Amino acid sequence: MRIVIIGAGAAGLTLASNIRENDDETEIVIFTKSEDIAYSPCAIPLVLGGCIESFDDIIMHDVNYYLEKNINIHLSTTVTGVDSSNKKITFEKGSNSESMTYDKLVIAAGSELIVPEFEIDNMDNIFSLTNISDGRLIQESIKDKKEIVFISNMSIGIESAYELARNGYDVTFLEQSFGILPLFLDEEMSGKLVELNKGVTFETNADITKITTDGAKKEIHYNGKSISADVIILPSNKVPSTSLAIQAGCEIGDFGAVKINEYLETNVEDIYAIGDCVEVKSHITGTQTLSPAGTTAVRQAMVLANNFLGNKMTFDPVVNTVVSKVGDYNYACSGITESFANMIEMPVVSECIETCQKARYYPQNNKLYIKMICRPDGTIVGCQMLSDGDLSSRIDVLSFIITDNLKCEELIQKEFSYTPSLTMVVNPTVQAALEIMKKIEK
Amino acid sequence: MRIVIIGAGAAGLTLASNIRENDDETEIVIFTKSEDIAYSPCAIPLVLGGCIESFDDIIMHDVNYYLEKNINIHLSTTVTGVDSSNKKITFEKGSNSESMTYDKLVIAAGSELIVPEFEIDNMDNIFSLTNISDGRLIQESIKDKKEIVFISNMSIGIESAYELARNGYDVTFLEQSFGILPLFLDEEMSGKLVELNKGVTFETNADITKITTDGAKKEIHYNGKSISADVIILPSNKVPSTSLAIQAGCEIGDFGAVKINEYLETNVEDIYAIGDCVEVKSHITGTQTLSPAGTTAVRQAMVLANNFLGNKMTFDPVVNTVVSKVGDYNYACSGITESFANMIEMPVVSECIETCQKARYYPQNNKLYIKMICRPDGTIVGCQMLSDGDLSSRIDVLSFIITDNLKCEELIQKEFSYTPSLTMVVNPTVQAALEIMKKIEK
Repeated sequence: MRIVIIGAGAAGLTLASNIRENDDETEIVIFTKSEDIAYSPCAIPLVLGGCIESFDDIIMHDVNYYLEKNINIHLSTTVTGVDSSNKKITFEKGSNSESMTYDKLVIAAGSELIVPEFEIDNMDNIFSLTNISDGRLIQESIKDKKEIVFISNMSIGIESAYELARNGYDVTFLEQSFGILPLFLDEEMSGKLVELNKGVTFETNADITKITTDGAKKEIHYNGKSISADVIILPSNKVPSTSLAIQAGCEIGDFGAVKINEYLETNVEDIYAIGDCVEVKSHITGTQTLSPAGTTAVRQAMVLANNFLGNKMTFDPVVNTVVSKVGDYNYACSGITESFANMIEMPVVSECIETCQKARYYPQNNKLYIKMICRPDGTIVGCQMLSDGDLSSRIDVLSFIITDNLKCEELIQKEFSYTPSLTMVVNPTVQAALEIMKKIEK
Repeated sequence: MRIVIIGAGAAGLTLASNIRENDDETEIVIFTKSEDIAYSPCAIPLVLGGCIESFDDIIMHDVNYYLEKNINIHLSTTVTGVDSSNKKITFEKGSNSESMTYDKLVIAAGSELIVPEFEIDNMDNIFSLTNISDGRLIQESIKDKKEIVFISNMSIGIESAYELARNGYDVTFLEQSFGILPLFLDEEMSGKLVELNKGVTFETNADITKITTDGAKKEIHYNGKSISADVIILPSNKVPSTSLAIQAGCEIGDFGAVKINEYLETNVEDIYAIGDCVEVKSHITGTQTLSPAGTTAVRQAMVLANNFLGNKMTFDPVVNTVVSKVGDYNYACSGITESFANMIEMPVVSECIETCQKARYYPQNNKLYIKMICRPDGTIVGCQMLSDGDLSSRIDVLSFIITDNLKCEELIQKEFSYTPSLTMVVNPTVQAALEIMKKIEK
């Protein structure tokens, strides 16, 4: 039995390790275009900012680590074709072209950058920022530079912007949308995050038309004006990588990603798909959505490994729970935003509160901002948080609340811990729910 | 309509405020023996340690604040009798004795200290530590002292011990049980907490026989030896205050606390009971238990207020979720301990793991210790955690997991947030569950 995995990101590697942990027999072969594996892309900003010394430090394992576990990884290798009727793939490494048969094929091909719509006269000092080689290029390139402009980036870009500003760079962030992180934060919350965090200059609703070059300087033209830069980081908008899946005959869904069932099977026999390249079901809307997060990839890999090992499991619908550290503040969200609810014409009630992380009288106390979004019957469907304290577990609680379909009034019954130096006696999440209840009762 | 509340702790005051917020009509009268109200006892250690400047700072409201809301509080007043057939109470303030009728009576009388079993020759420089006046006495008394001995205290005592040690006092903690915080932590976890935290000298299994006085010095005799002290803090073991409830004809349960139903009603018509003086149902065992925590009191008060206001709600069984900061470390727990499970002969499987709070490569990373306790089928029934990071929301997640009766294998499906500077890609709680699964499979 041979399992072939296309892609060595969180999805592919977790799958391989989880199978091997319980099964010495199955042959596992992984193909990846990349030279680097087993690193956390989320840690790239921390290296750029100097908080972690080198990109090597965020690489957890090399190919030999996997080879010792009898997992064979082909680096810098492009899978060029999938022949699902003969259960065979073809691949190219350098100028060599080879083929290999599979018993089971797992497409964990990830996602790829969208080419920006604006014109660029030449690509000198212009970079993308999605993987470790981008990070290395940027780190090298900015050494003797001063002005850096980021365009419409997601977490990794915004985190990097603040990290570089902290290190003395002049950093501007041009956001093409109504606010930063529009998939995670509604306008008032993304505005608040920008207001709280000093160091980076933001402009939203930037309609960028072109980037021109004048000697060593770049010029970004937008909204009838322009800004100059030494280095530009392009938008990180991505789309699922589906070309091999399409070639294999896999169905593609409305979001342009591979369609899978709850067992992570595609419509083609013995072909599975996990990670950024697939569509998943939203717990809230019940319809398909994307969930391009390392945590989703890891959970899908764990479920698929269990299925291969004979412990049949299903992959549950997602709520997309996210946390990130941006400058001195953290943001976190789970469920849907109000702007998304409006877009799909789903009626919601929302409330923003400003409260405290710790007891009000605690001297090192810090503000906590919460926006909660509910259906008209009080069922909690989304939450966004901002603070300079650790929000990771605070939003995890919301992840459970939303997955459990809890109503605001049911939150009163839920047990939260309390000590004045860490949190409030009436948990901030409950406070937000109580405020929403007042609105609903009206 | 007049509601009389006996007790002005978290239970009584929250009840009064929550009724008043939605009802201007009902007369609300509160009686308390205390002179101080509306403060957080959990914050006393922070004042003793100087982290919060004065005891006045932890008092959130005075009597006038409540009077303005038309809530009448009788301070320093002892309710001496309840005549439930005539729906009348008698009370004493100074030398005056009066009576008052009620339509509904709420007993929120809290708990009272147990007199220690060992002999004490005189009470000079010996204090209890449960309320703000104890705190003030201790603060005054230790000014010119050096050696302080705490005996078998709960969170408030252990926190105070570390706070005082941090301020230069020689602090010894004599624990009569197998380890500190025996209700919250199993032996290996309480041992670990002591090992991690420097500054206080601990002795466990201390069989204390007597305290004697030699001039200004006290001598504590235990295990055939003795230790001297300038100041001694007595054990904080408490029992529910039930004398008025008994007088009113209320049934008392196996744990010596007032028996109530899910609507917080006693067996006597129009008499309700909430807070430390009542028994509640354990979510895990299904039997009665105690839950002497401010958070439980507040939730019960919210539920009872809703019931008085006509929104019928029940008070759900508890899992007892706790967090506290002890020295440089925090501990947290939810559900039952293994030692409790052994005591009630409930079969469990447990596992301790040492993991990280943040990504392994993160430089400011710190250890996180987790003990998880499950039924043999993998249902999670208890968890204990130690770390120097914020554990409050981390244990809140466990509170949801235990209340939801989740099995370890179901945790794989649960969505946790991830960013390397705050948490790990496979959440530490999931790591613990995966370790237990290996044990269960064997």
